[in-house]
Amino acid sequence: MRSSNRPSNLRIAVIGSADAGELENRMAYQCGRMIAEHGGILICGGRTGIMTAAARGAWEAGGITVGILPGSDASEANEYIRIPIPTGLGHARNAVIAQSADAVIAIAGGFGTLSEIGLALKMGKPVFGIGTWRLDRGIHHMETPEEVIRRIFTP
Amino acid sequence: MRSSNRPSNLRIAVIGSADAGELENRMAYQCGRMIAEHGGILICGGRTGIMTAAARGAWEAGGITVGILPGSDASEANEYIRIPIPTGLGHARNAVIAQSADAVIAIAGGFGTLSEIGLALKMGKPVFGIGTWRLDRGIHHMETPEEVIRRIFTP
Amino acid sequence: MRSSNRPSNLRIAVIGSADAGELENRMAYQCGRMIAEHGGILICGGRTGIMTAAARGAWEAGGITVGILPGSDASEANEYIRIPIPTGLGHARNAVIAQSADAVIAIAGGFGTLSEIGLALKMGKPVFGIGTWRLDRGIHHMETPEEVIRRIFTP
Amino acid sequence: MRSSNRPSNLRIAVIGSADAGELENRMAYQCGRMIAEHGGILICGGRTGIMTAAARGAWEAGGITVGILPGSDASEANEYIRIPIPTGLGHARNAVIAQSADAVIAIAGGFGTLSEIGLALKMGKPVFGIGTWRLDRGIHHMETPEEVIRRIFTP
Repeated sequence: MRSSNRPSNLRIAVIGSADAGELENRMAYQCGRMIAEHGGILICGGRTGIMTAAARGAWEAGGITVGILPGSDASEANEYIRIPIPTGLGHARNAVIAQSADAVIAIAGGFGTLSEIGLALKMGKPVFGIGTWRLDRGIHHMETPEEVIRRIFTP
Repeated sequence: MRSSNRPSNLRIAVIGSADAGELENRMAYQCGRMIAEHGGILICGGRTGIMTAAARGAWEAGGITVGILPGSDASEANEYIRIPIPTGLGHARNAVIAQSADAVIAIAGGFGTLSEIGLALKMGKPVFGIGTWRLDRGIHHMETPEEVIRRIFTP
Repeated sequence: MRSSNRPSNLRIAVIGSADAGELENRMAYQCGRMIAEHGGILICGGRTGIMTAAARGAWEAGGITVGILPGSDASEANEYIRIPIPTGLGHARNAVIAQSADAVIAIAGGFGTLSEIGLALKMGKPVFGIGTWRLDRGIHHMETPEEVIRRIFTP
Repeated sequence: MRSSNRPSNLRIAVIGSADAGELENRMAYQCGRMIAEHGGILICGGRTGIMTAAARGAWEAGGITVGILPGSDASEANEYIRIPIPTGLGHARNAVIAQSADAVIAIAGGFGTLSEIGLALKMGKPVFGIGTWRLDRGIHHMETPEEVIRRIFTP
């Protein structure tokens, strides 16, 4: 019997807009890639934009990618999602994403991202932001994916 | 058979902190009272602080008060909730509050309120704020309960 | 200030098929009517068939009717629902129906009804059945709405 | 870039009691093991009894194990869960398990299992049962894990 390797598998959510710009997508890709390289599991919303970019980064680095989908059909997941979780919960799936993650990285993003930030902060999860909503408290704002990943994975 | 009176029963959510200050609670009370006086149904999270104040206002004006609770026990509702909905959904109940309301009034509030604001905006619901989170878009900021209620109920 | 009348407002869910037959619908109507006459609040799934019949019964007796809907639009509620709760949760709304009720009455019904029966029993709620799934334990099988209502509301 | 291997990764839920007997647990173990050997992803409720046994089987065969937990803390997952999804949804998580799976295997089980069977059948998912609830329709009853796995994975 192999012993559990769960402790080392930090689950990191990358959240952001479904129709982000090129720069944001590139940062999401780098976050995903570095999460996988550090042995983390990527959690995301499973769909387009930031979600596809982050999943592709983690996937190409050989990592596990989990897509917590709003709908009821796994086929709505993007092609880099290894483990689709079609929750059928609609917007309430945002709470599952936040709940499932050890930490959350928000890249840009709109109102859905804002709700996930609020939920994660309410749950006491650390939230790191790159170019995302400017709140007067709660979010650790950073400049680059490297900086975020270092903060998350450095003991 | 009575005909349906649903069209006139706007469902208005009042959201905010479970441990708000006296001024905020007074405004929530006034919102609740005026919602009921206009024939609206009060939706809230069913617990303490802003939720109790708003429910008490609607209750004392003879209105219907709905408490969409995070836990699984109706007894966690405050005493002014006529219809407790113990969802057992935890934080995901925030999505049900936003989904159930025709409009949302946010009074002050912390991260949970922020998440509800984000969810409501994502769903396209109008959100009115009194002394709440300052976002760069989305929320209609107002000064008084009277102003908010006028905006919601004036045809 | 009026004192809380919550203790006397038992919340009773009536569940069953969205396309039930005439006899089943008539029994659902009678359940709804008697729930309202006893001061109870009717909880249901808010849509067609058994849900419409039960809501109509409670509505015509002047009772409060709550429809916990799977979708995100209140307009999918039937015309006898006073308080639509459009959860947007899809099938997971079945858990909210069971969680919200003090007791559940199952009339006939298919797989959805079966799932609600299972959820309610798991939560320890009393479940009364009229012509519904025959399980080897759990359900209190009865013959008529009168019998069920007597069991629920007799102290 | 690797191409997606999702099509071959059938997600199979194994459901059953949290305090099952030795025989049932052994069958759950075998189901889990064979699911992994066939390249499937094991979905389960992430906790004790049948859930631990199935996860251990899949884990020991090198497979991916997903635990869709009712609570909000990943540490409530059993030690064979590679990917804990702490939903915080309570009983509503049963709907997410059913929604996430391509097929469901029910081994013995109580009311919670019954609710998951109902939800899966309502969603149109194939449900295979070993020594579980005897319904008059819906479940494909089988005698052994081998028989179930053959039915699921034989093209």
